[in-house]
Amino acid sequence: MLAPAAPTVKDAALVESRRRELAATALQLFRARGYHATSVRQIAETAGLSVGSLFNYFRTKEQILHFIYDQTQAVIEEGLQEVLQELGPDPDEALALALDRYFTLIDRHQDHTVLVYQEFKSLDRRAKRQVIDRERRIMDIFGRIIESGIAREVFRPHPVAATVHAVAAIGHMWATRRWALRGTVTLDEFKRAQVTMILQGIRRHGAGQEGGDV
Amino acid sequence: MLAPAAPTVKDAALVESRRRELAATALQLFRARGYHATSVRQIAETAGLSVGSLFNYFRTKEQILHFIYDQTQAVIEEGLQEVLQELGPDPDEALALALDRYFTLIDRHQDHTVLVYQEFKSLDRRAKRQVIDRERRIMDIFGRIIESGIAREVFRPHPVAATVHAVAAIGHMWATRRWALRGTVTLDEFKRAQVTMILQGIRRHGAGQEGGDV
Repeated sequence: MLAPAAPTVKDAALVESRRRELAATALQLFRARGYHATSVRQIAETAGLSVGSLFNYFRTKEQILHFIYDQTQAVIEEGLQEVLQELGPDPDEALALALDRYFTLIDRHQDHTVLVYQEFKSLDRRAKRQVIDRERRIMDIFGRIIESGIAREVFRPHPVAATVHAVAAIGHMWATRRWALRGTVTLDEFKRAQVTMILQGIRRHGAGQEGGDV
Repeated sequence: MLAPAAPTVKDAALVESRRRELAATALQLFRARGYHATSVRQIAETAGLSVGSLFNYFRTKEQILHFIYDQTQAVIEEGLQEVLQELGPDPDEALALALDRYFTLIDRHQDHTVLVYQEFKSLDRRAKRQVIDRERRIMDIFGRIIESGIAREVFRPHPVAATVHAVAAIGHMWATRRWALRGTVTLDEFKRAQVTMILQGIRRHGAGQEGGDV
C-alpha cells in the first residue's frame, strides 16, 4: 500500500489561500449577523463547502476568529515595518509617516478592528496571548520612534506607553466611532488632525516645527 | 371590589433602586461569563429572585444591557455638566478640568466602557439611537469648550469632531487597553500625559502656556 503523499509547498499555499477565503466569508457573516449568531455550518454553506470540508481548514469558529485577527495584525505589522525602512532620522517626520500608514491600514481593516473590540473575549487563553503579543510588537514600533525623538530632544520626556496606546485608540476609533466620523471628516482630514495633534502634543518646547502644519 | 393602589413616588424609587441592583448583578455576570453566555434566569438566581419577579423590572436581557448603558452615560453626562458650572473663561483650564473629570468617570465605569464596545451591537435600533444621542451630547460638552477656545484664539482652528472623538477614544482606552496600561502608568500619570498631549496638541502657535505643564 502506498503511503499518502506528503503535503507539498503548493498544497500549503492552497490551504493558506482557502483559509483566507473562508476567513473573509466568516468576517462578512460576523459583521452581518454577529459572531455568536453565526454557526460554522452557515460559514461552510456560504462558502459553498460541507462542514466536513471546512474542518480541513479550521476546527472551530474560534480558530477562524483567531485567524482573522492574526492575518490582519500581520498586515499591519508588516506595513509598519516597511515604513520603518523608509524613515530618515527626523523623529517628527518618522512619526508622521508611521501614523499615516497606521491610519491607512486601519481604514482598510475596519471590520476587523471592530471585531477585535467585540470578540477578543471569545478567544481562548493561548490565542489571546498571541494577539496581545503581536499588538505589543506593533505598539513597540511607535514606542521606538517616540523614544528616539525623546533622546534627540525633539519630543519632551513623558510616559511613552501613554502616547503609544493613545495612537492605537485614536487609530481604532476611525473604525469603532465611524457612526460619528463618517460624513463629518474625510480620512485625510482625520489623519491630518490626529497627526498634528499627536506631534504637536508631544513636541519639546521650542523644538522643530512647533505649532506648524505637518 | 377595590381597584389596585396607584403606584406612589415611593414605589417608583424602590423600583429604580431594584433595577440598579439587578443591573449591577448583571454587569458582574456579563463580565465574568460574557453577555451571550449569561441567561436572564442566571441573573435572577444570582440576585435571589425568580424569573417572574425579575420580569417586573426588566422584560429582556437587552433591556438590562440598555439600562446599564443609560445609567452610566447619565452619570458621565451629569459629572461633566457639573464641571461645566465650575469652569472659568480660560479654555485651556476648562478643557483640562473637563478631561480630568471625564477620565475619572471612565476609571469608575471601566466594565461598562468595555461592555459598550462588546455589546452595543446587541441593542435594538431604538436603544442604539438613544445611546448614540447621549454620547453625542457628552461629546458636545467637549465640542463647546474647544470651539470657545478656537473663538478666543487659544486653540488653533481645526476639525473639532476629530479632537472630540479622540478625547472619547483616549478616555475609553483606560478601560479597553487596561491589559497594556495597568502596572505601566498610574491613573494620575495617564491623565497628566493625555491632558498635556491634547492641550498642547491643539493650542494655537504662540498661545498661552505652550509646551508647559498642565
